[in-house]
Amino acid sequence: MNVCVRGQTRHYRTVTFDARRNEVRLIEQRLLPHEFKVVSTRDYRETAAAIRDMVVRGAGAIGATAAYGLAQGARAFRGSDPKKFSRHIEVVFATLKAARPTAVDPVNAMNAVRRAMARGEPVQEQQVIALAAAEEFADEDVRHCEEIGQHGARLIRSGTKVLTHCNAGWLATVDFGTATSPIYRAAESKIPLHVYVDETRPRNQGAQLTAWELAQEGVPHTLIVDNAGGHLMQQGAVDMVIVGTDRTAANGDVCNKIGTYLKALAAYDNGVPFYVALPSSTIDWSLAEGRTIPIEQRSGDEVSHVWGRDENGVVRRVRISPDQTEAANYAFDVTPGRLVTGLITERGICAASGAGLRGLFPDRAPGQKPQ
Amino acid sequence: MNVCVRGQTRHYRTVTFDARRNEVRLIEQRLLPHEFKVVSTRDYRETAAAIRDMVVRGAGAIGATAAYGLAQGARAFRGSDPKKFSRHIEVVFATLKAARPTAVDPVNAMNAVRRAMARGEPVQEQQVIALAAAEEFADEDVRHCEEIGQHGARLIRSGTKVLTHCNAGWLATVDFGTATSPIYRAAESKIPLHVYVDETRPRNQGAQLTAWELAQEGVPHTLIVDNAGGHLMQQGAVDMVIVGTDRTAANGDVCNKIGTYLKALAAYDNGVPFYVALPSSTIDWSLAEGRTIPIEQRSGDEVSHVWGRDENGVVRRVRISPDQTEAANYAFDVTPGRLVTGLITERGICAASGAGLRGLFPDRAPGQKPQ
Repeated sequence: MNVCVRGQTRHYRTVTFDARRNEVRLIEQRLLPHEFKVVSTRDYRETAAAIRDMVVRGAGAIGATAAYGLAQGARAFRGSDPKKFSRHIEVVFATLKAARPTAVDPVNAMNAVRRAMARGEPVQEQQVIALAAAEEFADEDVRHCEEIGQHGARLIRSGTKVLTHCNAGWLATVDFGTATSPIYRAAESKIPLHVYVDETRPRNQGAQLTAWELAQEGVPHTLIVDNAGGHLMQQGAVDMVIVGTDRTAANGDVCNKIGTYLKALAAYDNGVPFYVALPSSTIDWSLAEGRTIPIEQRSGDEVSHVWGRDENGVVRRVRISPDQTEAANYAFDVTPGRLVTGLITERGICAASGAGLRGLFPDRAPGQKPQ
Repeated sequence: MNVCVRGQTRHYRTVTFDARRNEVRLIEQRLLPHEFKVVSTRDYRETAAAIRDMVVRGAGAIGATAAYGLAQGARAFRGSDPKKFSRHIEVVFATLKAARPTAVDPVNAMNAVRRAMARGEPVQEQQVIALAAAEEFADEDVRHCEEIGQHGARLIRSGTKVLTHCNAGWLATVDFGTATSPIYRAAESKIPLHVYVDETRPRNQGAQLTAWELAQEGVPHTLIVDNAGGHLMQQGAVDMVIVGTDRTAANGDVCNKIGTYLKALAAYDNGVPFYVALPSSTIDWSLAEGRTIPIEQRSGDEVSHVWGRDENGVVRRVRISPDQTEAANYAFDVTPGRLVTGLITERGICAASGAGLRGLFPDRAPGQKPQ
């Protein structure tokens, strides 16, 4: 999407690859919205560190980063011994996988690259294929997000007020985003709309990333605290909720950023349609229902401290709670499919149920006849 | 309640009056949890400013502060002309009322003081009565909060995990608090319990005040973001929710800090009892139902900025969102009585319904025979 830097608007992808320098290029998301900066990782270890330290985050974006990281590692190999090369690739794969141990996208992305590489023979051919496969993975992510935008935009009418939680925006994918893609598509078609952005404590991805994206694209929006969405729905101020998902169970339950469940309850209580936008890669067909998903617990420091820019423009962390007070930090929650109006996928919109998902993806659902 | 300052534990009320100096003494709540400081206001104008600038906040606490402020203003009057005195009292009353124009407690408290003063004749007698009436108002607030604690503590069993939102603690009243009073009572009786404290964005009263209170009293507690409570309830980690209320409608609907409604929805969806603790002074008998209550909108700066202590111990404000992004800031929301298990009042616990409230307060409900 577009970013305005020093008065110049340019198009950026969240993750790209510089083949000449063999570097992965990433938007440094931890500095946003205070500073826009593109950083490069010079080898696969630096790429793994960028995923681990959350320079880049978001399912699609870390998937593409890991795919590029694997290609980067493959291309850095000197020599032609296939066995040594193979062992090297295993190390690169393991290093990138360990960067976010609970995430599923990097593994899926790297498996796709590895499958493609298996079609090549000499090391040099595999090195070429690795990059082509990583580029293909990134392009497919972009394509799926665009398709989600096309399907989802049909739900948006003139004047629609959308509420979104966390950042399922283009920074969370390679481009366009999932939950934001219908919004960008509608805005591009000059359909007037307004977006309520949940701050999304503790990491404030709404306040720091989604608000910044929408500001860059000129989409009218209002930042609210996570507590406010229910009241807005009671007042009839929200026409529709669209969020993303990190993992979708085969029965349509969705595991997304902590707090999503509360918004789904409020939407249900007030008759507000609640949509979840997702590329089919987030569907875990082996998962019968959402409540068995293990929920990542992160450091309590993310709750007791907040990052921001002080009055002198210095980005710093402040502590908000007493030193004696411990904090618990659950990263995700599970929203039962019964509270979800529909799933917006690259193939269209379906009910958040086993039947809904199987209907749209008969070739993927286990026990279904492949097409 | 107790505060430990430089190793010494002492009992404090949130608001007291120094009759010799004619000063209102207040805990400076904006510095907590980073610094404990008691400040004095030297005249009624300073007292009004302390209410306006939220040195003191919370329904019971600002009610008592306004009552003391009116007595302070009355006692500062020099002379014996009843007409001049009366005009002076009107100015003091109006100044204190204007400090928080939407709050109802200061007005009720000052009306009680004024009614008592009307029983006196010479100016000097009225000045004496004013302070006695203000002290009586503060003492009654303490008494009601204690009684709420007695009734509510019966709901707490060994090992009960309570979730609370915002600060309905002793800092929000003169002492004991409303939602926290049953917790303090149970803890005093050595009943093991655990409290989950909602951060309560945007002003973080949970992280800054409730967590601090509980730490001072040695009550085991865990700070969580406002997004997390639903997940905890899904996991069976919460046995009970207790919150306060700023205004209670005659049908049992409660208007409380923004986000309360979302927790009530989650409690209802998971079969977790949801209690609201309140002194009867918050019941607005003229209000048939909650949804007509006008909701105060505060500055968006409270959403876009956060106060905290930096790595050098300096308390400062940081901006978390982009400069171009506007924020909306709704202070309260309304939780329908249908989601509330019971109201804990100074007279006992009742259903959150018109019948429930009338049963407990037959002498107050309009259309009921006064006792």
